[in-house]
Amino acid sequence: MEKELSSIHYDKYLQLHKILDAQKLRSVEFGKPAHDEMLFIILHQVYELWFKEIIHDLSSVMDLFNVDLVEEQNIGIAISRLDRIAKIQKILVDQIEIIETITPLDFLDFRNYLLPASGFQSFQFRQLEVSLGLKRDNRISYTQCAYSGVFSQKEQDILNKLEEGDSMFDLVEKWLERIPFLNFDSAIGSGQSFDFVSEYKKSVEKMLRMEGKAIDDANYISESEKHLRLKMLGETNTYFGSIFDEKKHLKKIEEGEMKLSYKATMSALLINLYRDEPILRQPYMFLQKLIDIDDLLTSWRNRHAQMVLRTLGKKIGTGGSSGYDYLKTTADQHRIFYDLHNISTLLIPRSELPELPFELKEKLNFNFAQK
Amino acid sequence: MEKELSSIHYDKYLQLHKILDAQKLRSVEFGKPAHDEMLFIILHQVYELWFKEIIHDLSSVMDLFNVDLVEEQNIGIAISRLDRIAKIQKILVDQIEIIETITPLDFLDFRNYLLPASGFQSFQFRQLEVSLGLKRDNRISYTQCAYSGVFSQKEQDILNKLEEGDSMFDLVEKWLERIPFLNFDSAIGSGQSFDFVSEYKKSVEKMLRMEGKAIDDANYISESEKHLRLKMLGETNTYFGSIFDEKKHLKKIEEGEMKLSYKATMSALLINLYRDEPILRQPYMFLQKLIDIDDLLTSWRNRHAQMVLRTLGKKIGTGGSSGYDYLKTTADQHRIFYDLHNISTLLIPRSELPELPFELKEKLNFNFAQK
Amino acid sequence: MEKELSSIHYDKYLQLHKILDAQKLRSVEFGKPAHDEMLFIILHQVYELWFKEIIHDLSSVMDLFNVDLVEEQNIGIAISRLDRIAKIQKILVDQIEIIETITPLDFLDFRNYLLPASGFQSFQFRQLEVSLGLKRDNRISYTQCAYSGVFSQKEQDILNKLEEGDSMFDLVEKWLERIPFLNFDSAIGSGQSFDFVSEYKKSVEKMLRMEGKAIDDANYISESEKHLRLKMLGETNTYFGSIFDEKKHLKKIEEGEMKLSYKATMSALLINLYRDEPILRQPYMFLQKLIDIDDLLTSWRNRHAQMVLRTLGKKIGTGGSSGYDYLKTTADQHRIFYDLHNISTLLIPRSELPELPFELKEKLNFNFAQK
Amino acid sequence: MEKELSSIHYDKYLQLHKILDAQKLRSVEFGKPAHDEMLFIILHQVYELWFKEIIHDLSSVMDLFNVDLVEEQNIGIAISRLDRIAKIQKILVDQIEIIETITPLDFLDFRNYLLPASGFQSFQFRQLEVSLGLKRDNRISYTQCAYSGVFSQKEQDILNKLEEGDSMFDLVEKWLERIPFLNFDSAIGSGQSFDFVSEYKKSVEKMLRMEGKAIDDANYISESEKHLRLKMLGETNTYFGSIFDEKKHLKKIEEGEMKLSYKATMSALLINLYRDEPILRQPYMFLQKLIDIDDLLTSWRNRHAQMVLRTLGKKIGTGGSSGYDYLKTTADQHRIFYDLHNISTLLIPRSELPELPFELKEKLNFNFAQK
Repeated sequence: MEKELSSIHYDKYLQLHKILDAQKLRSVEFGKPAHDEMLFIILHQVYELWFKEIIHDLSSVMDLFNVDLVEEQNIGIAISRLDRIAKIQKILVDQIEIIETITPLDFLDFRNYLLPASGFQSFQFRQLEVSLGLKRDNRISYTQCAYSGVFSQKEQDILNKLEEGDSMFDLVEKWLERIPFLNFDSAIGSGQSFDFVSEYKKSVEKMLRMEGKAIDDANYISESEKHLRLKMLGETNTYFGSIFDEKKHLKKIEEGEMKLSYKATMSALLINLYRDEPILRQPYMFLQKLIDIDDLLTSWRNRHAQMVLRTLGKKIGTGGSSGYDYLKTTADQHRIFYDLHNISTLLIPRSELPELPFELKEKLNFNFAQK
Repeated sequence: MEKELSSIHYDKYLQLHKILDAQKLRSVEFGKPAHDEMLFIILHQVYELWFKEIIHDLSSVMDLFNVDLVEEQNIGIAISRLDRIAKIQKILVDQIEIIETITPLDFLDFRNYLLPASGFQSFQFRQLEVSLGLKRDNRISYTQCAYSGVFSQKEQDILNKLEEGDSMFDLVEKWLERIPFLNFDSAIGSGQSFDFVSEYKKSVEKMLRMEGKAIDDANYISESEKHLRLKMLGETNTYFGSIFDEKKHLKKIEEGEMKLSYKATMSALLINLYRDEPILRQPYMFLQKLIDIDDLLTSWRNRHAQMVLRTLGKKIGTGGSSGYDYLKTTADQHRIFYDLHNISTLLIPRSELPELPFELKEKLNFNFAQK
Repeated sequence: MEKELSSIHYDKYLQLHKILDAQKLRSVEFGKPAHDEMLFIILHQVYELWFKEIIHDLSSVMDLFNVDLVEEQNIGIAISRLDRIAKIQKILVDQIEIIETITPLDFLDFRNYLLPASGFQSFQFRQLEVSLGLKRDNRISYTQCAYSGVFSQKEQDILNKLEEGDSMFDLVEKWLERIPFLNFDSAIGSGQSFDFVSEYKKSVEKMLRMEGKAIDDANYISESEKHLRLKMLGETNTYFGSIFDEKKHLKKIEEGEMKLSYKATMSALLINLYRDEPILRQPYMFLQKLIDIDDLLTSWRNRHAQMVLRTLGKKIGTGGSSGYDYLKTTADQHRIFYDLHNISTLLIPRSELPELPFELKEKLNFNFAQK
Repeated sequence: MEKELSSIHYDKYLQLHKILDAQKLRSVEFGKPAHDEMLFIILHQVYELWFKEIIHDLSSVMDLFNVDLVEEQNIGIAISRLDRIAKIQKILVDQIEIIETITPLDFLDFRNYLLPASGFQSFQFRQLEVSLGLKRDNRISYTQCAYSGVFSQKEQDILNKLEEGDSMFDLVEKWLERIPFLNFDSAIGSGQSFDFVSEYKKSVEKMLRMEGKAIDDANYISESEKHLRLKMLGETNTYFGSIFDEKKHLKKIEEGEMKLSYKATMSALLINLYRDEPILRQPYMFLQKLIDIDDLLTSWRNRHAQMVLRTLGKKIGTGGSSGYDYLKTTADQHRIFYDLHNISTLLIPRSELPELPFELKEKLNFNFAQK
């Protein structure tokens, strides 16, 4: 039987008796009230609330992708939720300005009471990192112990299980690998064949040849500039060469230089190049949102590092870490979707793009066609 | 005996067992889980946490000003705390973007379960409005009942007591009235006298006379423009006239057009005009911060109104109010420090400013003088 | 023959010799240099540059829609460009903080030299308003003269021509009217018929009946609350009633209460309700972006008004207008896409939505179907 | 004779005939119009306009400080102008979101036409860096050539001259060195002596002793944690030790680890610790604003680097530089006021602060004292 509807008051709905009763100042407890400790507590609680929401949204997207076939509608929903995460992250970065109103001198009034509590002990933040795809082995360590050592056994179990399962990164990789457009022929069983990688390769080679000739012919640039440009072109050539060679790709993965599989990379490239085709529009936006989230996480780490430098200088953080250096390094090293960022390196101008056969274009459009 | 220091863990310090256990979705309870209800709850909880911090800061500033003589240092502290409030308010406005990610259609999935809960039932927000100086009689009503009718008796008592006591507005007014610089002679007992209002009046009259002549003489403007400008000047004249006349000022207060007393207004004007004198620098910044806070509250109401329009259209809000119209009207009518904004109308260019006698300037400087 | 490529330097490419040589301070010219006049000039130049970009993007979107059949791909492009406009608008609002660093007293140092120059004389801003769809008759007047009176004849001609042609509003209305899904049968010539308006009407009636019963049955609410809710329900009923009646809609348009035609309104409603169908996803996002732009323009006007109040108080603006009141009124009255906002009023929960026949759903999906 | 006032129109005042006529698209010139090139041009022009304003404000502050004795009032003015710069920088960071609306693929449509134009050729940006205090030797090089090689001889001369003169950093250092409060006795010729460094040293030593004892006595922490904390304390001890030793400070400067002189560092420390004294309030805020500006420049470089990564991937930038790596490195290495940030490391809690003798406190207050 359905539960009967009932009235509810704002306070009770939001459980404000819990929320607003959770600020117990240690400085008060120890007899030396520090006005700014209230902000310190509230700001961290706000962060934890937002982390809860981000995890709520991210998990739901992972559920939508944790299937053999992602429904068309669900890509739209995934985009909306990732967009929400990005908007929350924007606020997370901006509100660092608020915590900076606690000046270093004011912070010293209560800093000693907090030891060794530290943002390093935020379980939800670790949950978020792991869910996105940060692997234990890629973590920058800032103490000798495992990052999960500060958590309860139950929490460690949750993290372990998360690490074992598919992360957002893994799910995206699998989804990209499944996308059937790398070889249209096999995909749609039409007579007309179109092998993306080989067509793309031809275009790249032609483009590079033309560029080389253009530089050679250019009499408006000096010899030294000509030399520089040809050198750059050579590097580009080498770079593209490594792309067409699956073995080289595999080697890069082994060496930790890349993470995304060859097939997934090719699919991501195809989506970026042919994003204007109706069926690829949403997948393209989905990939963009992943990059947004990665970028905003990097921004947050950078901004966080600056705040720590400003408040603590070179001092050791409340968790026994030299916060600034740690945070600065994670900003670079803890990226998840770096390979998606780097797709840009592989793009070629639309004018050089292999044209899709008409029949294939049709397949990428809607059933309903306006006349 | 002093309490002995002890270790504390992040989770316990922030009481995350309360904070993260306070999201109970009504849509889940009623058997129709709506993904977005989580955000709806968390966002409101975040708002309430920030309200708590704002009240914490505002109350502390009110305490600093609730004395016969505000210590010099405390003006600096007050500025810092008001600045923090303003920074928080900026985030309150910006994060409306986040709630707008709940689309109207998604909101309908759980809206019915919330009735009649409504932001109108936020006790802390009322506390904040009353503390700033919003009077019961100046409130826009949006139902027939008193705004406090939705609160418990205990909460109503707190609001009543707050309304009886001095608000931030009252404390600022009293502080301005006490400032001893309107008549320097009586203030510092020096032989040299300087009556601000009469000197200022002379300057204004001279300035207006000159402007009139300039317009008359200007042969680069058309007759119709000349006419328009002289008309504007006449209005300015009338306006300034009403300033110098304490009775007219009183009348405006009675008619609800102004709120700030004559003496306080004159002091605020003096602070604005001579803000570069060292002793007036901080008071000037303090007044600016009050305006910032007022402006940001207005921005928040405007933005909030737009969000309601977008989500609900003309529909009645969850609290039985037509939210959009109510919020839009309060944005204009619930300003507290409008008279401080309006000081701008009274300013005259520095070049026209009565010069302070040297001895007085000295008095407004520091004891320690570099040679 | 194709033009030969050539080298170019940053300075020359950006024509910095023009851009950075266009700040001539009147206060310097008149012998009383005012430091802040530089900011005043530069800030307005920055606004004009952004206006140029907004017009560039908006015009291109209008071109894409100024055809009998909008290509699928072009909706995606339109969304990107409107999104860019929205991002620029966000900056336009935020950077008002910069101009507020010119304090009222500092502004007086050079204000007199500017007369009667005024933002009211910005041709590009008028161009933008007209392009969006602001009609001459709906303009709030702030002087007795026509808004275009301050422009050269050539500029007036451009505005007149723009007013005569189709605005963005007109193009959107026509596009919505053309959308073939209000009656699927006629649209796709299938045997299965689905008339949106009548199906939707049935759902609404059923929903309202159920809601009435639920209130009647609710024994957890007081009689007075029951009464209030039933009254609200009655109003909703009346409101929906007016929707289903095309004549009433026409009357509202005549009375200036609405602008969007009946058919276009129904299409916009359909798009909002069935936005999860692949073919409607992009149209839905397109409509959202129009609302974003409208909202941000309102935010800008509101924020602008506050800035004027703060800087000038009740003083007359540099253009002879009482800027604050004018701007505040336009924020409400110069909205273009108010009717799109108001679609929210018509939405019903997904659970009450008439289900689309399977064959129709197919038609709204892609040709290519994964197995 | 004074120049006679005259009317002026908005367009003419802003020289819009120059500003709006400076967008010449290369892609149009070469016959392949690319819609997004307009944004690319306008955005860079907007940046250059803001750079002009920042330089205008910064130079004026440098002028105020380029004297033997900085007037009290001018510190207030300097704060306002630095605050304005910070507000502009905030927008410079935020508007990177706008340029990111040019997707990598769209950028390729016109990228080839721009070679070798590059932000590296922005003269104003170099001017700004040099004015703040970036030395030629501390620059990260990104080509083999001198950073100034891309400029005209005239521009190089200006940069050279700027480099030879006092930068903002130099002026601040000299001002800090002149501040007379390190030794109050000599400063004010009073009988009461107060030597800041020695008093501060005593407090630090006492504090560290107490902290050591507290850790020893703490039976709520494990032995390993005790060990860790004592080790941290030892490092702090060493660090402070190096502070009290002017020779060690000099050595750090020689090794490039620090830049600010010993005396200036001590003054900055004093200002931070006793910032609540009226006469030190403004100097404190001034130092804060310098840190703000440094931080925002770092934020801008970080954000800029991310944008380049996203748009170009690992590709070489339009200026022949590998933009991403270069920008990321400058974010860390081109800081100017790092030593001011790092003052935080030296702060001790207010409760441990040596108390100022009453007579000295008086000297730091205003002449005018309320009774």
